[in-house]
Amino acid sequence: MKAIFCDGVSARLRTDLPEPTPAPGEVLLKVLRAGICDTDLQLARGYMGFRGILGHEFLALDDQGRRVTAEINQACRACPTCAAGQFGHCPHRVVLGIWRHDGAMAPWIAVDPRTVHRVPDAIDDRRAIFIEPLAAAFRILEQTRVDSHDRVAVLGDGKLGLLCAWVLRSTGARVTLVGKHAAKLALAGPEIESRFKEEVESQVQTAGGSDRARFDLVVDATGSASGLPLALKLVRPLGRIVLKTTLAAETSLAMAGIVIDEVTVIGSRCGPFPRAIEALARGEIDPVGLLGPEFPLERGEEAFAAAARPGAGKVVLRIS
Amino acid sequence: MKAIFCDGVSARLRTDLPEPTPAPGEVLLKVLRAGICDTDLQLARGYMGFRGILGHEFLALDDQGRRVTAEINQACRACPTCAAGQFGHCPHRVVLGIWRHDGAMAPWIAVDPRTVHRVPDAIDDRRAIFIEPLAAAFRILEQTRVDSHDRVAVLGDGKLGLLCAWVLRSTGARVTLVGKHAAKLALAGPEIESRFKEEVESQVQTAGGSDRARFDLVVDATGSASGLPLALKLVRPLGRIVLKTTLAAETSLAMAGIVIDEVTVIGSRCGPFPRAIEALARGEIDPVGLLGPEFPLERGEEAFAAAARPGAGKVVLRIS
Repeated sequence: MKAIFCDGVSARLRTDLPEPTPAPGEVLLKVLRAGICDTDLQLARGYMGFRGILGHEFLALDDQGRRVTAEINQACRACPTCAAGQFGHCPHRVVLGIWRHDGAMAPWIAVDPRTVHRVPDAIDDRRAIFIEPLAAAFRILEQTRVDSHDRVAVLGDGKLGLLCAWVLRSTGARVTLVGKHAAKLALAGPEIESRFKEEVESQVQTAGGSDRARFDLVVDATGSASGLPLALKLVRPLGRIVLKTTLAAETSLAMAGIVIDEVTVIGSRCGPFPRAIEALARGEIDPVGLLGPEFPLERGEEAFAAAARPGAGKVVLRIS
Repeated sequence: MKAIFCDGVSARLRTDLPEPTPAPGEVLLKVLRAGICDTDLQLARGYMGFRGILGHEFLALDDQGRRVTAEINQACRACPTCAAGQFGHCPHRVVLGIWRHDGAMAPWIAVDPRTVHRVPDAIDDRRAIFIEPLAAAFRILEQTRVDSHDRVAVLGDGKLGLLCAWVLRSTGARVTLVGKHAAKLALAGPEIESRFKEEVESQVQTAGGSDRARFDLVVDATGSASGLPLALKLVRPLGRIVLKTTLAAETSLAMAGIVIDEVTVIGSRCGPFPRAIEALARGEIDPVGLLGPEFPLERGEEAFAAAARPGAGKVVLRIS
């Protein structure tokens, strides 16, 4: 079959791959669409040494023709971590399209049926691609309490940054999206305060000793090594930073600020699919403005090039 | 008067300094003893640009001849941060012997009387020097819940590391002290498991995929740039790291582990004096084994040299 295959150097279209054989306990899903995200672009450059079919944001049909998607972490369900319900941290897990398991940029994918979620009719095919990244944004609310008194900054005007801003705004908190691109900042909508990085930095600097210009919670969704140092400048003493950025490289950082200001830094990864599906089905969050061009699977290499362009919307592969 | 003065290059004995004039609302205390800690050694090398009299761990007499000590953060008590009771984070604060206020390595020190604490008779002069660093160790228990099910590692067999290990052990948790020096590890006592760094590292590596060898909570009290990377190796997924190390320099670090394992990193600084005084008065924690040599104030430069030697105990200046 055809698939977008990662060989650790690039993402290539291959046409010679066998259809997947489900492992014991797995079921086959027929993939309709798969999104390309920054993690895919990083994997294609050798991040984490993944070799296999890419793709972990997807919409598919199950064997009864129902629209479904699946969680990316496929856990062993037998170890102490799984017994504690922490499937996403199972030390024996595989991760669809990321770690020791083929992904969804192919006509078929094999998954653990316990990770499959129905996609309600209220979510159209285009919006369904955002279930996985929106779940990652909702993860923040599982990890730290956010309420309407909180001043929140989200760093990064990419797709994940916008999803995080919307999710945080849904708590009633005052949310500032900090970015570099006027067009992307404009996507945030009227309920989010959009600011250029330089504006916010100088605002905090001007305030000097006062902490009023600083934020209770800062989310780093920049995907860049500059995100955490900026977060440390913007967060108030005793404030919280949620780290969404995963970088293959080492980052150089003055850690003393974390100690002196007693800041809490919380690493944050995958989140609750049911909550994301509910928010999309109810229209609480509408990510349609984040969409970019669609490509058929056969033009997957072109699609990866489009996804890598600065400012690209969510590029989607149409598979069947 | 005589005092140990930091000029940003070194700590020197000066004999030409005027006695302090208390600012409005301050009172004068007559200093009996002052300890030298790693922060003093760093300040003396130019950390934070401090110029003034050093010393923030001390025992003194108030104007009625009672034994007292004082908290190091001297807050404005007027700003919103102070109104919230967070005096240690007041943006207008001065810090005794560290930031814009002279310290205790002199016969007199001026302090805000609201920061003064009586030292009960049950705490002798030698042990009283540990009130400030022991309070910093107790700060951990204010920031994160620790109970008897937790497996805790404390990195660093220096004085702060040992105090943290004892405080954490007092919760019933299983505590491993990780260090490099057999003599210092031996000070921990029978209730703490003492391990060489290499032992613990290889234990975690051997366990491979299993998380059983890793720790729920890791405290970095190394004072070294190698502390946080080691903490990230030893902590389990969803675990917590408490950072006690303040370093002037930048640290290079692979941050991806924090995100992938969803680790929480908590900066931790000054703590509750009443709790530390209580623990010392009751003998719950006895730091006497951590003491090093004493020097009269006049031999302060020699005392700093002794404190800078690897493995030095707590060096104390006798002042009056």
